[in-house]
Amino acid sequence: MKQEHIDQIMAAAKAVKAKKNVNHIYMVACGGSKALFDPAQYIFDRETDIPATVYSSNEFVHRAPKALGEDSVVITCSHSGNTPETVKATEVARAKGATTICFSHLTDSPLWNAAEYPIHYNWSDESDASDYNNAALYSLVFHILNELAPNEKYERAIKCVENVPELFKRNVEKFAASAKQFGEDYKREPMIYTMASGANYGVAYSFAICLLMEMQWIHSHAIHSGEYFHGPFECTDYDVPFIIIKGLDECRPLDERAHAFCQKYSKRITLIDAAQFDMTGVDEDLRGYFCPLVVGVVLRKYADEIADHRGHPLSVRRYMWRMEY
Amino acid sequence: MKQEHIDQIMAAAKAVKAKKNVNHIYMVACGGSKALFDPAQYIFDRETDIPATVYSSNEFVHRAPKALGEDSVVITCSHSGNTPETVKATEVARAKGATTICFSHLTDSPLWNAAEYPIHYNWSDESDASDYNNAALYSLVFHILNELAPNEKYERAIKCVENVPELFKRNVEKFAASAKQFGEDYKREPMIYTMASGANYGVAYSFAICLLMEMQWIHSHAIHSGEYFHGPFECTDYDVPFIIIKGLDECRPLDERAHAFCQKYSKRITLIDAAQFDMTGVDEDLRGYFCPLVVGVVLRKYADEIADHRGHPLSVRRYMWRMEY
Repeated sequence: MKQEHIDQIMAAAKAVKAKKNVNHIYMVACGGSKALFDPAQYIFDRETDIPATVYSSNEFVHRAPKALGEDSVVITCSHSGNTPETVKATEVARAKGATTICFSHLTDSPLWNAAEYPIHYNWSDESDASDYNNAALYSLVFHILNELAPNEKYERAIKCVENVPELFKRNVEKFAASAKQFGEDYKREPMIYTMASGANYGVAYSFAICLLMEMQWIHSHAIHSGEYFHGPFECTDYDVPFIIIKGLDECRPLDERAHAFCQKYSKRITLIDAAQFDMTGVDEDLRGYFCPLVVGVVLRKYADEIADHRGHPLSVRRYMWRMEY
Repeated sequence: MKQEHIDQIMAAAKAVKAKKNVNHIYMVACGGSKALFDPAQYIFDRETDIPATVYSSNEFVHRAPKALGEDSVVITCSHSGNTPETVKATEVARAKGATTICFSHLTDSPLWNAAEYPIHYNWSDESDASDYNNAALYSLVFHILNELAPNEKYERAIKCVENVPELFKRNVEKFAASAKQFGEDYKREPMIYTMASGANYGVAYSFAICLLMEMQWIHSHAIHSGEYFHGPFECTDYDVPFIIIKGLDECRPLDERAHAFCQKYSKRITLIDAAQFDMTGVDEDLRGYFCPLVVGVVLRKYADEIADHRGHPLSVRRYMWRMEY
């Protein structure tokens, strides 16, 4: 990660510590950026008793949680830095005295200027992946935790972020053939469910609403592996396609149970079992937390392949960028 | 509401007050029962700075939030009182010293015995609807708020719960014809999206996963009205069906925006506009909060009608009640 970005992250983490009595960490964004925050919320839930919640930006603005105020920390993210709902959420939070931190690929964007502590991240094929939005977010999360309650585990986690580029490269290669097969096998499906729990639910959500719905116009829904048995499983049938993620965190038993049932009645399951990931470079006790990052890049290859087999590039839109809404 | 149930609710609310320093209110259940808690979370968010979070039971058990302890309140719900994940969640919470409150239709069930403060609710066509699970939950929420910070608004809200039966009756009648038309028009659809935000998101979720997926085997996904523009909207097309709920709470502008866009490109929209509800008996400033209860009973009629037109009773299951899982 670039020193400039580490400096921005550390300044933000120190500002959180300076609050002394943080009452709530709000993580606020839209769509894929919102989904990024899901594993961070999981980590905060397990590591600190400070409440952490993820909101879609416009819901946050209109809901206006009563606890939002000077003791709050609000972390926002928008790739372009132009998402109006997220800029507004940051402005509302800052006006209420909260410490505002934002992630954006574009500096000097409206979001960049709205937050007190803006953090830049890289985004291109040539970028160091430890500088991506999700890796930068992990660095911030562990820096915040380490400022609040110093712990060698958090220091190790910060170091592991530097190994993310190799982690991504190895696992994308490892799953290249499976991704290609997926593209061929599923190119004619009008609807594909995703399923996950724990730290990985956000990746399943992001794949459903951004990769499948937005970029492929394939209907989808991210089913929570625990909720599956309380409604959705009745839709399971031999020809209903599911992408099931089995994670490495404490919720893995939920994914295992859902997969065990689902494979009895659906012949169209694509399993991403994180137990098959090569997690070299991430300490054993941190693998559950880092797993969603790897699921994300692996699934991106699945999306690339299905797009290729369907002749529908991931960059095509019919509404976004083409009209006002 | 029966005095016996009011007594149970008041005992639970007083136990919450006795904690003095509540650090977190966890609301934990599965599927439809989990969805019940969604508007309660909305109300807590707006009325108190005590953090309130909703978890699916098994996620709660395995995630094991660090903040869960003696200062926590855990509210659970299971209709039968037999949902193993919810019983386990209640036991885990109680073992950690949290104040445990449960809602169940069956007394002396495992859930009933697991919680310190069990609350019974009625459930039958002849029942007083103010004794239903959602009305009883609202009574608890406003009793808790009133114990923590006495306010005439909360006292009025508690009184409004008594008007719920009339509220339900009037609005179900009002939407009877629309429900019938929906059943006829949508009986051949293999997939129907739902959409809502704010206090009503839980009802949209419940309708998607319980009524459509579980009880009709119709594919579905509850899209958040704010998130719609950040992915899902690209799936909108002339023949893609959406049930859109426009609520009465602070997030209504999100629903209005989603509806305005969606109706330009889909010819298959079913709008439930709560502005058309007859909300007599609920004070003006409380209508946003009570709205989800009405949406729930109105949508139930839509489900009854589609089930009738499809010859697929809502009571039919292929996995639930028929096997171990």
